[in-house]
Amino acid sequence: MKILVINGPNLNMLGARDTNFYGSETMDDIESEMRSTYPQIEFDFYQSNIEGEIVNRVQSATGSFDALIINPAAYSHTSIAIRDALELCTIPKIEVHLSNIASRDDFRSKSLTASKTDGYITGFKKHGYFAAVFLIQRIMNEK
Amino acid sequence: MKILVINGPNLNMLGARDTNFYGSETMDDIESEMRSTYPQIEFDFYQSNIEGEIVNRVQSATGSFDALIINPAAYSHTSIAIRDALELCTIPKIEVHLSNIASRDDFRSKSLTASKTDGYITGFKKHGYFAAVFLIQRIMNEK
Amino acid sequence: MKILVINGPNLNMLGARDTNFYGSETMDDIESEMRSTYPQIEFDFYQSNIEGEIVNRVQSATGSFDALIINPAAYSHTSIAIRDALELCTIPKIEVHLSNIASRDDFRSKSLTASKTDGYITGFKKHGYFAAVFLIQRIMNEK
Amino acid sequence: MKILVINGPNLNMLGARDTNFYGSETMDDIESEMRSTYPQIEFDFYQSNIEGEIVNRVQSATGSFDALIINPAAYSHTSIAIRDALELCTIPKIEVHLSNIASRDDFRSKSLTASKTDGYITGFKKHGYFAAVFLIQRIMNEK
Amino acid sequence: MKILVINGPNLNMLGARDTNFYGSETMDDIESEMRSTYPQIEFDFYQSNIEGEIVNRVQSATGSFDALIINPAAYSHTSIAIRDALELCTIPKIEVHLSNIASRDDFRSKSLTASKTDGYITGFKKHGYFAAVFLIQRIMNEK
Amino acid sequence: MKILVINGPNLNMLGARDTNFYGSETMDDIESEMRSTYPQIEFDFYQSNIEGEIVNRVQSATGSFDALIINPAAYSHTSIAIRDALELCTIPKIEVHLSNIASRDDFRSKSLTASKTDGYITGFKKHGYFAAVFLIQRIMNEK
Amino acid sequence: MKILVINGPNLNMLGARDTNFYGSETMDDIESEMRSTYPQIEFDFYQSNIEGEIVNRVQSATGSFDALIINPAAYSHTSIAIRDALELCTIPKIEVHLSNIASRDDFRSKSLTASKTDGYITGFKKHGYFAAVFLIQRIMNEK
Amino acid sequence: MKILVINGPNLNMLGARDTNFYGSETMDDIESEMRSTYPQIEFDFYQSNIEGEIVNRVQSATGSFDALIINPAAYSHTSIAIRDALELCTIPKIEVHLSNIASRDDFRSKSLTASKTDGYITGFKKHGYFAAVFLIQRIMNEK
Amino acid sequence: MKILVINGPNLNMLGARDTNFYGSETMDDIESEMRSTYPQIEFDFYQSNIEGEIVNRVQSATGSFDALIINPAAYSHTSIAIRDALELCTIPKIEVHLSNIASRDDFRSKSLTASKTDGYITGFKKHGYFAAVFLIQRIMNEK
Amino acid sequence: MKILVINGPNLNMLGARDTNFYGSETMDDIESEMRSTYPQIEFDFYQSNIEGEIVNRVQSATGSFDALIINPAAYSHTSIAIRDALELCTIPKIEVHLSNIASRDDFRSKSLTASKTDGYITGFKKHGYFAAVFLIQRIMNEK
Amino acid sequence: MKILVINGPNLNMLGARDTNFYGSETMDDIESEMRSTYPQIEFDFYQSNIEGEIVNRVQSATGSFDALIINPAAYSHTSIAIRDALELCTIPKIEVHLSNIASRDDFRSKSLTASKTDGYITGFKKHGYFAAVFLIQRIMNEK
Amino acid sequence: MKILVINGPNLNMLGARDTNFYGSETMDDIESEMRSTYPQIEFDFYQSNIEGEIVNRVQSATGSFDALIINPAAYSHTSIAIRDALELCTIPKIEVHLSNIASRDDFRSKSLTASKTDGYITGFKKHGYFAAVFLIQRIMNEK
Repeated sequence: MKILVINGPNLNMLGARDTNFYGSETMDDIESEMRSTYPQIEFDFYQSNIEGEIVNRVQSATGSFDALIINPAAYSHTSIAIRDALELCTIPKIEVHLSNIASRDDFRSKSLTASKTDGYITGFKKHGYFAAVFLIQRIMNEK
Repeated sequence: MKILVINGPNLNMLGARDTNFYGSETMDDIESEMRSTYPQIEFDFYQSNIEGEIVNRVQSATGSFDALIINPAAYSHTSIAIRDALELCTIPKIEVHLSNIASRDDFRSKSLTASKTDGYITGFKKHGYFAAVFLIQRIMNEK
Repeated sequence: MKILVINGPNLNMLGARDTNFYGSETMDDIESEMRSTYPQIEFDFYQSNIEGEIVNRVQSATGSFDALIINPAAYSHTSIAIRDALELCTIPKIEVHLSNIASRDDFRSKSLTASKTDGYITGFKKHGYFAAVFLIQRIMNEK
Repeated sequence: MKILVINGPNLNMLGARDTNFYGSETMDDIESEMRSTYPQIEFDFYQSNIEGEIVNRVQSATGSFDALIINPAAYSHTSIAIRDALELCTIPKIEVHLSNIASRDDFRSKSLTASKTDGYITGFKKHGYFAAVFLIQRIMNEK
Repeated sequence: MKILVINGPNLNMLGARDTNFYGSETMDDIESEMRSTYPQIEFDFYQSNIEGEIVNRVQSATGSFDALIINPAAYSHTSIAIRDALELCTIPKIEVHLSNIASRDDFRSKSLTASKTDGYITGFKKHGYFAAVFLIQRIMNEK
Repeated sequence: MKILVINGPNLNMLGARDTNFYGSETMDDIESEMRSTYPQIEFDFYQSNIEGEIVNRVQSATGSFDALIINPAAYSHTSIAIRDALELCTIPKIEVHLSNIASRDDFRSKSLTASKTDGYITGFKKHGYFAAVFLIQRIMNEK
Repeated sequence: MKILVINGPNLNMLGARDTNFYGSETMDDIESEMRSTYPQIEFDFYQSNIEGEIVNRVQSATGSFDALIINPAAYSHTSIAIRDALELCTIPKIEVHLSNIASRDDFRSKSLTASKTDGYITGFKKHGYFAAVFLIQRIMNEK
Repeated sequence: MKILVINGPNLNMLGARDTNFYGSETMDDIESEMRSTYPQIEFDFYQSNIEGEIVNRVQSATGSFDALIINPAAYSHTSIAIRDALELCTIPKIEVHLSNIASRDDFRSKSLTASKTDGYITGFKKHGYFAAVFLIQRIMNEK
Repeated sequence: MKILVINGPNLNMLGARDTNFYGSETMDDIESEMRSTYPQIEFDFYQSNIEGEIVNRVQSATGSFDALIINPAAYSHTSIAIRDALELCTIPKIEVHLSNIASRDDFRSKSLTASKTDGYITGFKKHGYFAAVFLIQRIMNEK
Repeated sequence: MKILVINGPNLNMLGARDTNFYGSETMDDIESEMRSTYPQIEFDFYQSNIEGEIVNRVQSATGSFDALIINPAAYSHTSIAIRDALELCTIPKIEVHLSNIASRDDFRSKSLTASKTDGYITGFKKHGYFAAVFLIQRIMNEK
Repeated sequence: MKILVINGPNLNMLGARDTNFYGSETMDDIESEMRSTYPQIEFDFYQSNIEGEIVNRVQSATGSFDALIINPAAYSHTSIAIRDALELCTIPKIEVHLSNIASRDDFRSKSLTASKTDGYITGFKKHGYFAAVFLIQRIMNEK
Repeated sequence: MKILVINGPNLNMLGARDTNFYGSETMDDIESEMRSTYPQIEFDFYQSNIEGEIVNRVQSATGSFDALIINPAAYSHTSIAIRDALELCTIPKIEVHLSNIASRDDFRSKSLTASKTDGYITGFKKHGYFAAVFLIQRIMNEK
């Protein structure tokens, strides 16, 4: 199984950012833990601060991967472009947020992009990524 | 480990309801599958259509259970009372929605209650409950 | 023909309430007049001030009754839970309001629940219940 | 008894319009059925697509008719002029909508005109007109 | 003099809740202090987490009590049903909030129910209940 | 004990104003009754129609008085300047309104200034001032 | 001097309408009084309930009249078409309202059409028409 | 006849201000022309930039003057205090604006104060004051 | 091929109106140029200032014409009646605006009617009508 | 004549996307058809998913091309940066949308960018690009 | 060079106020530092808590001073009167805020008055005043 | 001292853009003048039209520079991503706008990004950059 993991703006700074919301590990730490936890899965990790590059990557997912995990970060709340790209993507796709978007700034409480994924997981820091893999496995088994 | 699972209004009708949003299994089916999947966990399933009874049950969770999984259903969007009860609850607590609330009616897109949980999972039908258990296990191990 | 009539909060106080809006008869007076006017119909009258009990009763209607008349009163304007229960109900269902909700407080001008009934009748005091029976009879004859 | 029935814009196209919302009969069919159902009542049917002509007709109702049934259609949601004319009209007056305005476009969910009638009936297709006559009879008997 | 004191959702948890907003005493402590401070007054304390039960209790107040003190807590901001019940209640009635609702969440800044009481007192923790009794005495003396 | 009582715009006209909302006594009557009721307290009554003079007076309160009772009247709903002055004031401070601001014009339903007081009392006409003194006494005793 | 006076919907019913807002005289009474008060002015009075006919009449004013007095009544608040016609009209033009639009329904508090007149007069019942003539005379003298 | 004319903030700068909106004459010019035009009327002209002083002056009008002309300028749109003072004032009272408030900034399009006058005149530059006198004369003659 | 061209309110004044927005030619000039440019097409030009007459004309289009070009002008932004008539119209239909509605008054930025046409063209002055014919030809060829 | 055609995010996926809204041809198909239809015009087609690259390309248009056709897709509704770039662009510029933005999601109904073009064409699928060329030719001929 | 420095409500309390937002120096400290830093400039410092007195002072600036530095404090967000006075003021004028208004209460995030100054500086505590002088010097040199 | 100066979209076009708002100099002119004015400071000028590249550059500032001057231009009003990057940046940071954002389009009146800087300067054209340096020097000296 191949899973594409896309991380949006400022997630390359994880660990330096407010650890109360985001946890103290870096994205590299999370990547390592995911690879060692799920050795049978081939992960492709991608991070970009550029909205359009994320659109590019989402477009390339269908056909090349079995599932998509995406954390659009700040772009979740403003990007119709990523939303449209996700709508075109036909593999299982899960949105993850490290912090609980329901308990932060008002402008973060809605996710434009999440409505074009299967569903989303928010508030569990790094564990959200693992839960996403757990869900992909269950969804795939069901088919 | 003891986990309290609270289900809100109309979830007793699961299976009869729009299966596109909610899946075709009943809540009893989900309960059975959870018990057999996690035999080492003691689950207490509770369902009520009455907002105040859910408040009662949430109040009783702290001290008696190790974690709380709650699907407040329709009350997620209107109940300040359940929100206040969750704020008082000091064990790990996860909100689950069967359907993806980001892609339904406008009045369902915000959850008042979720901001007082650790986080929430939305859109994965019955699998959301299993992901909640998965997350509780990871969170507990971390401590 | 069996018809379930559900009345929401404060309708047990009818007669004592502002008679300009609601008329001077009690709910018992209306019940009596309905039974004597339509002796061939079996009515089940139910009143509750508790939102969730109304949800319970609406859930029980399908299969046991031929039609549902519901006056959710104050809950019309706030209850997504009753709305969801009505959506699950597959028999003919009519919402009735004693007062004309279009000419009262702003927060009463929209009915969340009415959108999941066949239609609603508002402003004719007790006569609204009789018009509801009249409409059920016409709808049933048509089939 | 003389009843004026006013129908607003596009109701002359009934039968051609979305039959899911409006039913499959034409306004002429409804008129015929009403005349044959209530032979003792003298009906005057009037239809216009012009807002101001409807204002004219409403103004002329008081004194010449015993009651008014009005379906302002699209003008319900925008016409302060018809609302003002209805306010001046002192005979019993009932607003009817064929479709359930609570379950359609947002801009149809409020009726400006209905607040100046005795009440309104919405969602029962042609049956709404018959229920209006039924209610007028009950209201008149009461006096 | 007989006074009914109604407390809404989560007030049974007082003392455990954020003491900055609510003070550190339990509702039982307050009840005891009120009984000992005003031995000549017969108090009936009632608490419920269920909106409709509070409606029931408010309905029963007129005729059985001389005055009503109500703290609808979370329901102040959402319950039209309690508002309607208070409107029907004809004895002196005072709303009390422990915390200052003007300095908390936006959705707590308006009270739907308060507009149907004589007035309200907000922000003085337990002292608000005593001020309510003080005001009832002055209002009664005035008559 | 020294208490400063500040009254805002148009309160010098009390007695002439709508007595249904405000009661029939003048501010002088209230002042007299307060002095005779609480002979042990030194009151300083101040009234001004000028927003900035009220700011001046609030600024001068800390250090010179033990407590502040303020009825900012119309300025409650618009004055950020008085709000900022109250925030700087460190003695106990209580806002009083004669009428119930929850049941009047929409633009009176929120108080900008109240969020920077300990709490407020609204709707009890002159009795609100007495309740404010009652509360100041209780708060002081508690310390 | 020739002045065109255009009156909008329901002004033909003046005298029958709420006399508290509109005064007790009919439009014919006002017309007579204006002709006798200003015998040197040639008035053309026009009334229509049809928005588009008012547009027609406003279009015809430039070139044929020295000034325009218009009371668009209900259409003031909704008609962009009359607004556009007024914008094209290059003679002095004054909007008049019989009632004070600032103290009525919210949807009457703004006038879309007034922004394309020289100014408007509102609240003085029939006297507003006379003040309009008074102002036209002053404006003309100034040139 | 004695008329009080109150002018609000920045009207002392008239003539220097944008002459397109306000005309090129100073307030002194207007005062002189009014005195010479209506020698039989005793005018008292008052201007202040201070909201509370305008409140003071409005309070003093009843009993001392036969009518009030007020141009609250910028305070029209924000002052509840002047609105309340005008509500207390029982002589004929007319609001005047030099510019047409319907065709300027959005925040100028509503007048809070005008709803508590008999009516208002807006857009006719200095002529508005003369029209106000004209209307006072007609209103007085009518009595 | 027969095309019906409907023009809404004030378009009969074209050429006199603000030429920056609308161009300097009259509607007759445009009609002549269209007839000479497309001699093989039979055009029926219709203009009315009356909303309901436009509804009438739109209703008559289906069956009698091959396509509809409509410029509802001011009614685009307010007329649900024309919108409903367009929804009933089953031939190709294109909305045209002379000015760019995206760069004018806020209340012109949305078109209620356009959502029930195939699409719309806005901002190209008279050329929009020609582009509409161009598009009708392409759409027809495609079938 | 040289025309720059800029296509925004996800338009590289045309043909795969919802064909009901967008048509079944790819952007390459459209490009080919445009080149063969207008052999005398030199087209430069550019597509990017990155907002800032579109800004770059728009900036480069003035001086190098005779006209600009732009379909900003998702960025139409959110990009002030593209809007500002278009404002700086002084050649004829036309915005095109494949689908009718008036009949889709609310957040697509307004175009921020269109207000800084000459006008826009929306709803005619690929034909919109051809109509844009048609309009550019007419506009150029006019000069 | 003569510069008028106007400070609005509660700035006389500087140093006592929340030092996190405002810094720990008093306004006198700032005044002294400015005089010693710029000995060649004649400063006139004025502080008032009264909105209208600030209007008076702004009116007096033109002609008597070379530039104006104003910190309207709380009145920035509500005073149309000061805005109008600033619009009349024709010398260079700079608005200063001690705290960063973009990161405080919502009602502080917009400045009504700033739109009628050359620009504003916000968030740099006392340094903002020095930057204002720096900018005035540069602007003056440029002329 | 090393200062990073980041300029956002379309600032590379400075000089060509509306000179009333932005001044007539190019960004190169400003850069030269800054280097010659402050020879002791090492400036790094960076401009990009791409939101994510600005995020990248902001992320790189901490550790490599002593202070940051940023003019996010159009992205100020829409970019949560740049806001988040600024929040992570721990050196002194100042936002600059050439034009006065308080007196332009509504959608430009709020800056999302400014709340995560020390403060901002808006409206002084090129001088804003110099004032930013001036402020950085003062802030640094203070430490």
